[in-house]
Amino acid sequence: MATQADITAMRRAIALAARGLGSTSPNPVVGCVITDASGHQVGEGWHQRAGGPHAEVHALRAAGVLARGGTAYVTLEPCNHTGRTGPCAQALIEAGIARVVYAVGDPNPQATGGADTLRAAGVEVEQGLLVDEAEAGNLAWLTSVRTGRPFVRWKYAATLDGRIAAADGTSRWISSAESRADVHRLRAEADAVVVGSGTARADDPHLAVRGVEGAVQPLRVVVDTEATAVKPGARVLDDAAPTLIAVAEDAETALEPVVRLPRAATGGLSVPALLDALYARGVRSVLLEGGPTLAGAFLAAGAVDQVVGYLAPVLLGAGPAALADAGITTIAEALRLDVTETVRIGPDLRVTAVPTVPATPKGA
Amino acid sequence: MATQADITAMRRAIALAARGLGSTSPNPVVGCVITDASGHQVGEGWHQRAGGPHAEVHALRAAGVLARGGTAYVTLEPCNHTGRTGPCAQALIEAGIARVVYAVGDPNPQATGGADTLRAAGVEVEQGLLVDEAEAGNLAWLTSVRTGRPFVRWKYAATLDGRIAAADGTSRWISSAESRADVHRLRAEADAVVVGSGTARADDPHLAVRGVEGAVQPLRVVVDTEATAVKPGARVLDDAAPTLIAVAEDAETALEPVVRLPRAATGGLSVPALLDALYARGVRSVLLEGGPTLAGAFLAAGAVDQVVGYLAPVLLGAGPAALADAGITTIAEALRLDVTETVRIGPDLRVTAVPTVPATPKGA
Repeated sequence: MATQADITAMRRAIALAARGLGSTSPNPVVGCVITDASGHQVGEGWHQRAGGPHAEVHALRAAGVLARGGTAYVTLEPCNHTGRTGPCAQALIEAGIARVVYAVGDPNPQATGGADTLRAAGVEVEQGLLVDEAEAGNLAWLTSVRTGRPFVRWKYAATLDGRIAAADGTSRWISSAESRADVHRLRAEADAVVVGSGTARADDPHLAVRGVEGAVQPLRVVVDTEATAVKPGARVLDDAAPTLIAVAEDAETALEPVVRLPRAATGGLSVPALLDALYARGVRSVLLEGGPTLAGAFLAAGAVDQVVGYLAPVLLGAGPAALADAGITTIAEALRLDVTETVRIGPDLRVTAVPTVPATPKGA
Repeated sequence: MATQADITAMRRAIALAARGLGSTSPNPVVGCVITDASGHQVGEGWHQRAGGPHAEVHALRAAGVLARGGTAYVTLEPCNHTGRTGPCAQALIEAGIARVVYAVGDPNPQATGGADTLRAAGVEVEQGLLVDEAEAGNLAWLTSVRTGRPFVRWKYAATLDGRIAAADGTSRWISSAESRADVHRLRAEADAVVVGSGTARADDPHLAVRGVEGAVQPLRVVVDTEATAVKPGARVLDDAAPTLIAVAEDAETALEPVVRLPRAATGGLSVPALLDALYARGVRSVLLEGGPTLAGAFLAAGAVDQVVGYLAPVLLGAGPAALADAGITTIAEALRLDVTETVRIGPDLRVTAVPTVPATPKGA
């Protein structure tokens, strides 16, 4: 039975975990809080970057001998395997932790078994505290484990009548400065930011993170099927962040670095092939900032796991829509979502939603 | 200095006033609470319908002799003139009310002066308590007094990408049953519901209020410029509610009742002429349920005072947009709004917004 103190400690661990978003891939984000035998917090930590110490190790270091007889609250089941760092289950046992409370079971077959190891060593183990909150905090990683491809968050900014630009193509600014700053936070949480050739041509976007302290820059990806949109000197080619240009196998380009991918039957590049290529590069979460065409291709491929719409209280009555052909012709085929959050961001509304039917695992 | 008891009583009066929405035009909605000399509530009332007793009279009747020495809380300055009912200021004086607290000053030149009359009779008078809430509750009436035309609320239901139907025209149902029920509440609050010929042709809508207890049916108005959309036997012609067909002066029709109006230079009927014709019939608030074309014409005419969008968590990627040509070609001309409320209605979001720059009074 979880006490209020258990809930408080786990909620803190979940908040700590979120600090790692964007810098831990291919690992999950994890937070850990340690309390001593009398329930006082004596250590905390989070997984800060792939290859670095796990959350439990940070927290145990902070707690020192005070961990003995205490409780460890961890957002994810402590790992049982020796990767670039030692197994956390063993570290917790050696530190004399008497009780481990974790939220989410580890779905990664290489890492699972931590709970069993702890129990075998006489540690009291409880699972499931604040599991929904902890899963939401690890949504990108859990989705990528389940589907075998990167988690895809599609972000768009539109007017209340669904336009991303006026009839003459002007669009600066539809959404507010606050919303644009918020997008930089989303970029910082992602391993890769993806746009299409239309956006590259129209906006010459930079796509790097600005204004987020300590952010790890995401991989900037331009889907430039014909290799005609990204020109030498494009802003996305500067050294502010790594960049990858995805082109068709038969496209001619001198740009570097490029990845050559098969074309989709419906035009453009194969979305699954693109996601495979990114996954192979360690990308576990993608912020899709693509314009309407690329977003339509991702949606038609069933490759959008979350939608984040910045709705500006603006009406235009003409101009391009936020989403173009997603392969839907009649209302029965509409992609239905569940709204998970609505927040005011400055004058705008940010609406977060997930497909009612989640994406299916690869090959399923 | 307002006490908590004052605030509680005025908030109750504002809630009572809202019960009259849709049945008091051309009068405002008004609520009244009366407390006795020791502060206990002894009467309440609201203006229920044009021609019926004012809120103060209902409340005084309920309070009887207990009103003597007490306080009257009224959402709007008590009237000073004898219309179909006697002046409320006089009724309050005769009942022995010692103090009157009202929220909003009466902007109607025929009715103003109540506060002066009360003061002259030795009644203590305070103005401005919860004035913003009370004004919001009387938004339609206050707007119609200020602009000299009916208040116009444009309601639309669209997907997150701004579509009102799929590519093949199917649209049942984009918004949820909860949202559709909520629209009936908006209809009940309005004096008239207006649609265009496109909607009449596509949907054969009924436009009457269903499922709202005690609702006064609004006038159903179809803007059918060429008199070709509403056919004999159309659902809007039944006897569930009054109906008015607005046609061009030169259109040929045998339908009744029609109002003949000048054409607009940009096509369709003149929106100002339509609003004048409705105002002349006592309409002070319009729920514009028109499709994208009519909504665009109203917006282009500066004749939308409030936007209520039901956003369904659905993506289509194709199909007609919620708003068509509003005369805006570049981003600098965009119609900017302030969001005043966002509410979850079932699975949908209801967003209410008002133009950043309010409509100008007629002739200004």
